[in-house]
Amino acid sequence: MSRLCDLTYGIVGLGLMGGSLAKAIRGNVLGAPAAKGRILGYDINVASLEQAASQHIVDAVYDTQAVDKMLAQCDVVYVCLYPHATVQFLKEHRAAFKSGAIISDISGVKALLFANLGDIVREDTDFIPGHPMAGSEREGFAYSSGDIFQNHNYILMPLEHTRPEKLALFRSLISAMGFTRIVETDAHVHDHKIAFTSQLCHVIASALVDSAEDTGVTAFGGGSFEDLTRIAMINAPLWAELFLANRDELLLHIDKFMHSLESLRGYIADGSSADIEAYLENVRTRRVAMNTIVSKAAQ
Amino acid sequence: MSRLCDLTYGIVGLGLMGGSLAKAIRGNVLGAPAAKGRILGYDINVASLEQAASQHIVDAVYDTQAVDKMLAQCDVVYVCLYPHATVQFLKEHRAAFKSGAIISDISGVKALLFANLGDIVREDTDFIPGHPMAGSEREGFAYSSGDIFQNHNYILMPLEHTRPEKLALFRSLISAMGFTRIVETDAHVHDHKIAFTSQLCHVIASALVDSAEDTGVTAFGGGSFEDLTRIAMINAPLWAELFLANRDELLLHIDKFMHSLESLRGYIADGSSADIEAYLENVRTRRVAMNTIVSKAAQ
Repeated sequence: MSRLCDLTYGIVGLGLMGGSLAKAIRGNVLGAPAAKGRILGYDINVASLEQAASQHIVDAVYDTQAVDKMLAQCDVVYVCLYPHATVQFLKEHRAAFKSGAIISDISGVKALLFANLGDIVREDTDFIPGHPMAGSEREGFAYSSGDIFQNHNYILMPLEHTRPEKLALFRSLISAMGFTRIVETDAHVHDHKIAFTSQLCHVIASALVDSAEDTGVTAFGGGSFEDLTRIAMINAPLWAELFLANRDELLLHIDKFMHSLESLRGYIADGSSADIEAYLENVRTRRVAMNTIVSKAAQ
Repeated sequence: MSRLCDLTYGIVGLGLMGGSLAKAIRGNVLGAPAAKGRILGYDINVASLEQAASQHIVDAVYDTQAVDKMLAQCDVVYVCLYPHATVQFLKEHRAAFKSGAIISDISGVKALLFANLGDIVREDTDFIPGHPMAGSEREGFAYSSGDIFQNHNYILMPLEHTRPEKLALFRSLISAMGFTRIVETDAHVHDHKIAFTSQLCHVIASALVDSAEDTGVTAFGGGSFEDLTRIAMINAPLWAELFLANRDELLLHIDKFMHSLESLRGYIADGSSADIEAYLENVRTRRVAMNTIVSKAAQ
């Protein structure tokens, strides 16, 4: 099997996520003795390309005219664009990928991607849809970091014909970048679960900030409000796209959450101490039982 | 003015909060050269008393029979009990406090306390209600720490006749323990604001865990769900008491939050990208404008 440190990696989109993946590969993979690997970078933002090159995160940069030349060299290509742009890029550049390449993406919603698989996959390459479960409320290459993946989850959705040796190689890359739990599932389960763990949480955090009387309320904060709303420093265009690309699943979870909230509200309105305690005891038991491998503040 | 390091401190209730206050006083106040100060501790839990004494956090311990002897010696008394128990303790032991003492509490809701002020205050002591805005999802002296107050908020509700020099002394103690922002307000404003920053957040976190399909969903987590629900590892009897002691304010904020949530839900259901983006842009602007002095993960 190929050594990870000898491969050529292509990063399409050097934003927060693409930049972080590039830095993790640079730091954790290409530092091996006698490594021959390289990282090639493409972005429409020239400033991001210049930063990535000047910081020696990428070895060469490519603009829109030259990106096909980059793709032709890459053993592994990471497409790190917004969901619709990812599908569009994979369709437009379908013919440019190197034969035998592993291609993956980072889209937070997969239904759209899977609906277009026929125009994306090629028999002589392996497209392995994936979702690195990490991020930041900050945007752009300047805030990227190779450390944000440590101890995080990664979701993979291999296709029916994914070559086992390519999947194994890609999994070893993911582990090398610092992820500690890789879940393999399908697009439907992914979108259903992510609508809860990710999109619903962003909806709740946003609504909580929206409902604040004024921005001075944090003078009365003790950490709870701050923790619940950090993700409300949100990238509006990206999350609007994610919410709508997964609308039905998200609405289902919003309604389920509102139902749970209304139950607890009812117990409080009724002044029913026993019902509130029973509800909270059950919640505590469930939350403690959850195996959260991401848990900085609780350590 | 008295030196903080020469005073005798009494801690009533050596749980998570009482233990943490005792440790902060021990570590940050009584370490001064030639300090003559002491910390005396009372709890109905003998194990907590023994731990606090064996770890040299307190210099002497008192049981229920002896607690009045402790109070008679203390220049500063911290009552660190649940809201109803705090009121009961302050009433029952009203006559026992040392003349000239500063007495404070840590109750998360103040309406109950202020309704009973007539049976609590004495002319020759200063009762200064307060709320240290810090905590932990863990309970008990074993999890207490003198470091949890660093960079946190403290809310004080001085009474009309609070002696300025006593207030200044108490403020200097609060600063010495690590708090960086002290807000002075009244009980009504406190309860209104805290219903939002603290109680509503615990309601939301609890409802979110309640609405989870199963406890395995965290295999699909990237940090958002974990951050939003850490406080759902909740002390059920304490929070049931807090919710009911501040019921009207809490219901008001729950309803306001649900209204905000329904607006965003409506935009998503309508597929209105422009409305979602405008909502999220406004939320982002508001959240960034909030001066959060507690912000570990965002650093």
